[in-house]
Amino acid sequence: MKPLVSIIMGSTSDLPILEKTASFLNDMEIPFEMHALSAHRTPAEVESFARQAAGRGIKVIIAAAGMAAALPGVIAAMTTLPVIGIPINSSLDGRDALLSIVQMPPGVSVATVGINGGLNAGILAVQILALADSAIASRFERYRQSLVCKIVKANEELKQIEYKYKTN
Amino acid sequence: MKPLVSIIMGSTSDLPILEKTASFLNDMEIPFEMHALSAHRTPAEVESFARQAAGRGIKVIIAAAGMAAALPGVIAAMTTLPVIGIPINSSLDGRDALLSIVQMPPGVSVATVGINGGLNAGILAVQILALADSAIASRFERYRQSLVCKIVKANEELKQIEYKYKTN
Amino acid sequence: MKPLVSIIMGSTSDLPILEKTASFLNDMEIPFEMHALSAHRTPAEVESFARQAAGRGIKVIIAAAGMAAALPGVIAAMTTLPVIGIPINSSLDGRDALLSIVQMPPGVSVATVGINGGLNAGILAVQILALADSAIASRFERYRQSLVCKIVKANEELKQIEYKYKTN
Amino acid sequence: MKPLVSIIMGSTSDLPILEKTASFLNDMEIPFEMHALSAHRTPAEVESFARQAAGRGIKVIIAAAGMAAALPGVIAAMTTLPVIGIPINSSLDGRDALLSIVQMPPGVSVATVGINGGLNAGILAVQILALADSAIASRFERYRQSLVCKIVKANEELKQIEYKYKTN
Amino acid sequence: MKPLVSIIMGSTSDLPILEKTASFLNDMEIPFEMHALSAHRTPAEVESFARQAAGRGIKVIIAAAGMAAALPGVIAAMTTLPVIGIPINSSLDGRDALLSIVQMPPGVSVATVGINGGLNAGILAVQILALADSAIASRFERYRQSLVCKIVKANEELKQIEYKYKTN
Amino acid sequence: MKPLVSIIMGSTSDLPILEKTASFLNDMEIPFEMHALSAHRTPAEVESFARQAAGRGIKVIIAAAGMAAALPGVIAAMTTLPVIGIPINSSLDGRDALLSIVQMPPGVSVATVGINGGLNAGILAVQILALADSAIASRFERYRQSLVCKIVKANEELKQIEYKYKTN
Amino acid sequence: MKPLVSIIMGSTSDLPILEKTASFLNDMEIPFEMHALSAHRTPAEVESFARQAAGRGIKVIIAAAGMAAALPGVIAAMTTLPVIGIPINSSLDGRDALLSIVQMPPGVSVATVGINGGLNAGILAVQILALADSAIASRFERYRQSLVCKIVKANEELKQIEYKYKTN
Amino acid sequence: MKPLVSIIMGSTSDLPILEKTASFLNDMEIPFEMHALSAHRTPAEVESFARQAAGRGIKVIIAAAGMAAALPGVIAAMTTLPVIGIPINSSLDGRDALLSIVQMPPGVSVATVGINGGLNAGILAVQILALADSAIASRFERYRQSLVCKIVKANEELKQIEYKYKTN
Repeated sequence: MKPLVSIIMGSTSDLPILEKTASFLNDMEIPFEMHALSAHRTPAEVESFARQAAGRGIKVIIAAAGMAAALPGVIAAMTTLPVIGIPINSSLDGRDALLSIVQMPPGVSVATVGINGGLNAGILAVQILALADSAIASRFERYRQSLVCKIVKANEELKQIEYKYKTN
Repeated sequence: MKPLVSIIMGSTSDLPILEKTASFLNDMEIPFEMHALSAHRTPAEVESFARQAAGRGIKVIIAAAGMAAALPGVIAAMTTLPVIGIPINSSLDGRDALLSIVQMPPGVSVATVGINGGLNAGILAVQILALADSAIASRFERYRQSLVCKIVKANEELKQIEYKYKTN
Repeated sequence: MKPLVSIIMGSTSDLPILEKTASFLNDMEIPFEMHALSAHRTPAEVESFARQAAGRGIKVIIAAAGMAAALPGVIAAMTTLPVIGIPINSSLDGRDALLSIVQMPPGVSVATVGINGGLNAGILAVQILALADSAIASRFERYRQSLVCKIVKANEELKQIEYKYKTN
Repeated sequence: MKPLVSIIMGSTSDLPILEKTASFLNDMEIPFEMHALSAHRTPAEVESFARQAAGRGIKVIIAAAGMAAALPGVIAAMTTLPVIGIPINSSLDGRDALLSIVQMPPGVSVATVGINGGLNAGILAVQILALADSAIASRFERYRQSLVCKIVKANEELKQIEYKYKTN
Repeated sequence: MKPLVSIIMGSTSDLPILEKTASFLNDMEIPFEMHALSAHRTPAEVESFARQAAGRGIKVIIAAAGMAAALPGVIAAMTTLPVIGIPINSSLDGRDALLSIVQMPPGVSVATVGINGGLNAGILAVQILALADSAIASRFERYRQSLVCKIVKANEELKQIEYKYKTN
Repeated sequence: MKPLVSIIMGSTSDLPILEKTASFLNDMEIPFEMHALSAHRTPAEVESFARQAAGRGIKVIIAAAGMAAALPGVIAAMTTLPVIGIPINSSLDGRDALLSIVQMPPGVSVATVGINGGLNAGILAVQILALADSAIASRFERYRQSLVCKIVKANEELKQIEYKYKTN
Repeated sequence: MKPLVSIIMGSTSDLPILEKTASFLNDMEIPFEMHALSAHRTPAEVESFARQAAGRGIKVIIAAAGMAAALPGVIAAMTTLPVIGIPINSSLDGRDALLSIVQMPPGVSVATVGINGGLNAGILAVQILALADSAIASRFERYRQSLVCKIVKANEELKQIEYKYKTN
Repeated sequence: MKPLVSIIMGSTSDLPILEKTASFLNDMEIPFEMHALSAHRTPAEVESFARQAAGRGIKVIIAAAGMAAALPGVIAAMTTLPVIGIPINSSLDGRDALLSIVQMPPGVSVATVGINGGLNAGILAVQILALADSAIASRFERYRQSLVCKIVKANEELKQIEYKYKTN
C-alpha cells in the first residue's frame, strides 16, 4: 500500500502535534508516511524528498515547523504537489512560525492551517483526496456529522448546571 | 419563567468563564439559558437558534468563542437582538478571538467585552435589560455601590503593611 | 423631542467617524445629541455629563476616543446606562485605543465595536432601543434587509467581468 | 463548460485582489465563477451557496474577506469541499483577517494563503485540481518554470548597475 | 511626618509590584502613603484623592494599574503634580496596560515606567524629589554606586565557570 | 539665563516633534537648550553631556529617539537627573522605540511619554519644575484651564451640525 | 578583481535598499557582486550559488528578502560563510520578514540587521572583512569618525532655531 | 592563550543562554572570556571594555541583554569589531529585547540572532573566525555535517510509530 500523504516535521519535538494528523489520516484509512527533515539542517535531504514525492505517488505533503519555519515553503518551491503548512508554537506563541509559513511571496503557495493545527492539516489533506475518491468522501462526511454529536453531549452537560434563575 | 438572556458557548471548555456570567445574572434575578453551539461545527443549529431567539422572548444573547471566533458575529448576522461577544483566550493570549469578534464589518455589530470577560458580559446584559425594568435597575445600582466596599477593604489591608517611612 | 442617545467624542477630529453614527440614528428616526468631552482634558465636565445622563432621559451613550482612550470606561464608571465604545485610529492603527476601551477590569463594562466603527456603534444603540420600541424594531428590520440588496448589486457588477474561462 | 472553482468575495472592494486569482485560473484554462457573498450581511445566501457547491460540480472554493473575516470558515463549515481563504488587508495591516481565517478550531479547516494573496490562492486551487487532471498539471509545470525567467531578467537589470568596485 | 509620595493601586493584587516601590522609598528615607483606588470602580474616591493630593503636601503620585489601565491618566487629569504610571501585567503580557498608560493624548502626561516596573517608579520619584533636597540626592547617589557592586559580584561568579578554552 | 531643561534629539529629523516641546517650555517661560546627540554615533559626546548636565544647572533632560532608541536610557545611566524619553515613530509605528525606551531594567529609570509625545514631554518637565517654583506652577495651572476652552469651542462646532433628529 | 561580498536579493524591487549596501561597499573599496535569486522561485539556482560561493572567494553573503523571507536562512544552510540577512518591509511593516530571518532554529545562524537596513548590512560585512585586512580597517575607522561630523552639523542647525527662552 | 571572543551579559541570570555559546566555542577550540556588564548600571565599565577589546586581541564580541536591551548597540558604538547581539526573553516574550537590539539606526550595526539564540551566536562567531583560520573552518565543517546525523536518528524514532495505514 503506497502512501498518499507525506507528513514532514522539522524535529521529533513536533510529534505531539503531528500525531493528531497521523491519527486522523489513519481513521480515514489513508496510507501515509512520516519523516523528519529540516530546511536549515538537512537542505539536501529536503530537496531530494521534495523532487521525488510526486513520482512516488504522494498526493499531498503536510509540513510542520516552528520559529523561522522555512520548511513548508522550501518544499513547496520544489514540488508541484499541494503543501499544507502547520506553524508550530515553539517561540513567540507561534506567531513567528505562522508568518514564516503563510506570508509566501507570489508564485509559490502553502496552504496554512492554524498554530499547532495538526488535526486541521489532516482534515484538509482528506478534503483534497476526497475530490477523487468517493470512499474517502463518505468517511469524511461521517466525520463531519460526528462533530454535531459532541455538541449535543456538551448541551447535556450544561443542563446539569443549576442556578436558581436558570431555565432550559 | 421564560429566559431573557441566552448564554452560548463554542465548547464546554469555555464554561469557567461563562459561569461568571451565569452567576451574575443569577444574582441579578434574571432568568437565562445556556447552550453549546459552534459556528463551525454545528452551523445549522446556530442558525435555528439565532432565528428563533427573539420569538422565544430572549432579549440579549451572550456568545463566547476562542481562536477564529466567528460565533458571536454569525449569530448577530441572523438576529436583530443585541449580541454581546466574549473573546476566550485559548491561543495567542486571546488576541485572535478578540479581533475575530470586535472587528465586524459595517452593518452587523457585536458588543465586545474584554478577553475572558465573563462577568462584564453579564453586566452589559443587565444594563440593557435595566433600561426597561426598574427592579433590575435597582439591583444593578446596589451592585455598583458594592464595588466601593471592596476597595474599602483593600485599604484596610494596606494599612497593615508597615515601613518606617510609611504613613497612613 | 428629548434625545435618547448621546454621542460623545474626545475631539472634533473624530467627527468623520461619528457622522456615520449620527447619520444612522437619524435614518432610524432616533433623537440624539452630540458633545465633545475629554476624560483627560475636561474630567469635571465628563463627570457631570455621566452622572446626569440617565436623569435627562438618555438610554444609551456612545463614546469615541483614540490613543489611551479612557473616555468610554470613565463614563461607564459614572453611569448605569449601557456605554458603547468606539476605538479611534489616531496612532498604532488604533490598537492602543481598542485595548484601552475593551480590556475593562471586572465590574465596569464597555460594549466595544471595531476600530473606527461609527456605523456599528449606531446599529448597536438601535438594537438596544428596539427591545422596547416596536417602531424602531421595524425600521431596523428593514435596514437589515437592505444589506442583502447591496450584495445583489455587487453580483451584477461581477457578471460584467469577462474572462474566457469564467462562467456565470 | 461548468465551473470547477468558485471565487467568493465579501464585497466588490476586494476585487483587485481576486482579479489576480481569476486571471491565473483563466491562464490555466480552468472554468470558474465569481460571486459576492457576506457571512454577516447575507448569511442565508452563504448557506445556500455552500450547501449546493459540491452538487454543482465545484471542486475548490476560494473565499476572500477582511476584518473579522468569518466568510471562509463559515463556508468551510457547510461544505466538505476544500476551502482556500484569502485574508484581505482592510484594517490593522490585515492581521485581523489573517487570524480570523487561519485560527480555525479543530474539526473545520481553511487552507489560508498570505494577506492579499490572490495569486497564491489561485495557484493552490490549480495544484489541487492538477492531482486528477494531467493537462492542468502540465500547464502548471510550465508556469513554475516561467518563474525562473523573471529572475533571469532581474539579473540582466542588475548587470547594468555600475560601481567602481562592483563585478559581474 | 507628612507623606511626600502617594502610591496608588487599582487592587491589592498589584501589591507585590508596589512593595518594590515602597521598599525603595523607605530605603531612601522618604515618607509615603499607600492607597487602593480604582478609576472604574471608585471614580468619586479617585477624584477627591487627586484634587486634594497637592494640598496635603504630596509631591509625586505613583499609580499602578492593569488591563485598560485608566487610573494614572485619570489622576493626572485632576492634579498638576507629576504622576508616574506603572503598567501591571494582568493580561496580554501587560501590553494593554502599557498602551493605556503611555499613549496619553496631548495636554495631560503620565511618566510611564516599564511593565511591572515597581522599583523604577520609586527611582523616578526619588530623582524628582532629589532636585530640591540634597540629602535625598546623596542617598540616591550612593544607591547608584551600589549598582556597580552587583556587577562586580556577578563577574566573580563568572570566573568560577570553567571551560578548557575559556580564559579570563 | 541658564537653561533648566535640556532637549536632546538623535537627529534633526526628530525636530518637528521636539518643536512642540520647545514651544511649550517657551510659553511657560522656562529657559532651555537643544542639542543633537546619538547614543550610537557619538557615544563620547553623550557621556560628556550626561555627566556635566547637573553641574551646569540642568534640572530635567528630555531625550527623543527612534528605532532601537538607546539614547534616553544611556543618558539616564550617566546622570541622576530625571530623564524624560520620547519614542519617535520612524519605523514599526514607533513600537520599537517605545519598547526600547520604556522597558528599562531595574535600577535605571526613564519617564516615558507616548509615541511622538513632544508636547507631553514638555508638560512633564514643567510639572517637575513647578514643584519648587510657584511662578511656573501658576502658569501651568492656567495652561490646564485653557484645555477646557478648546472643548467649549469644539462643542460650538458640534452645534452647527444639523440632522432632523439631532437635538442640542 | 574577485568579489569578496555577494549581495543577493529576492527581487529587483528590493534594489533601493541594497543600493545603500552596494554604495557603502564601494566607498570602502571592497569588490562585490549583485544577484537576484529566490528561495521559493529559483531554489536550484540558490543552491548552486550557495554551494559555490566560498570556492569563488566570497567571504560574506548579504541576502535581503521580504514576507516569508526564507532566502537568508536557506543560503546559510548551504554554506559555512557568514550570512547577513536584511528583512525587507513589503508587508506587515516588515515584521514578517524580520521574524522569518532572525528566528533561525539552533544550528544554522543568520546575522540579522534592522528592517530595510541596507547600510548596516554593508557595515557589518566591512567589520568582518576588516578583521583580516588593515586597509579596510583604516577606511572603516574613518567612516566611523565621520558620523560625529553629521551630529556637529546638526547642532549648528539647532543653534539657528530661536525662542525667547532658549539658550545655547 | 589570548581570548578571541568576548561574551558579555547584562546579568548572570542570562547565563543559561550564554552557556550554550560558551560550550560551542569550547567545542570549536576557540579561546574566549566571559564578563557581566550593564549598559545602564555600569556604563563606565562598558565603555572601557569596548574601547580596549580590539587592542587586547578580541575579534568578535557577543552581547546578550533583555528588556530595553541597549548593551549590544552601545558596545557596537564604541568598537569597530563585529558585535553579535542575543535578545534575551525576560519580558514580552523577548520582543522588546529583539527590537531594541536589531533596529539599530543607520551607521552602527549589530548582528542579531534569534531570541535566546545562545548557540547561534556562537556559530556566527565561529563562521567569522573561520574566514581566516582553516583549522576552525574544518571543525565547523564537521559540526555542520553532524546536524544531519540528528535528523537520521529522528527518522529512526519515527519508524517505531505504528499505525495501521502508516508506511515507511
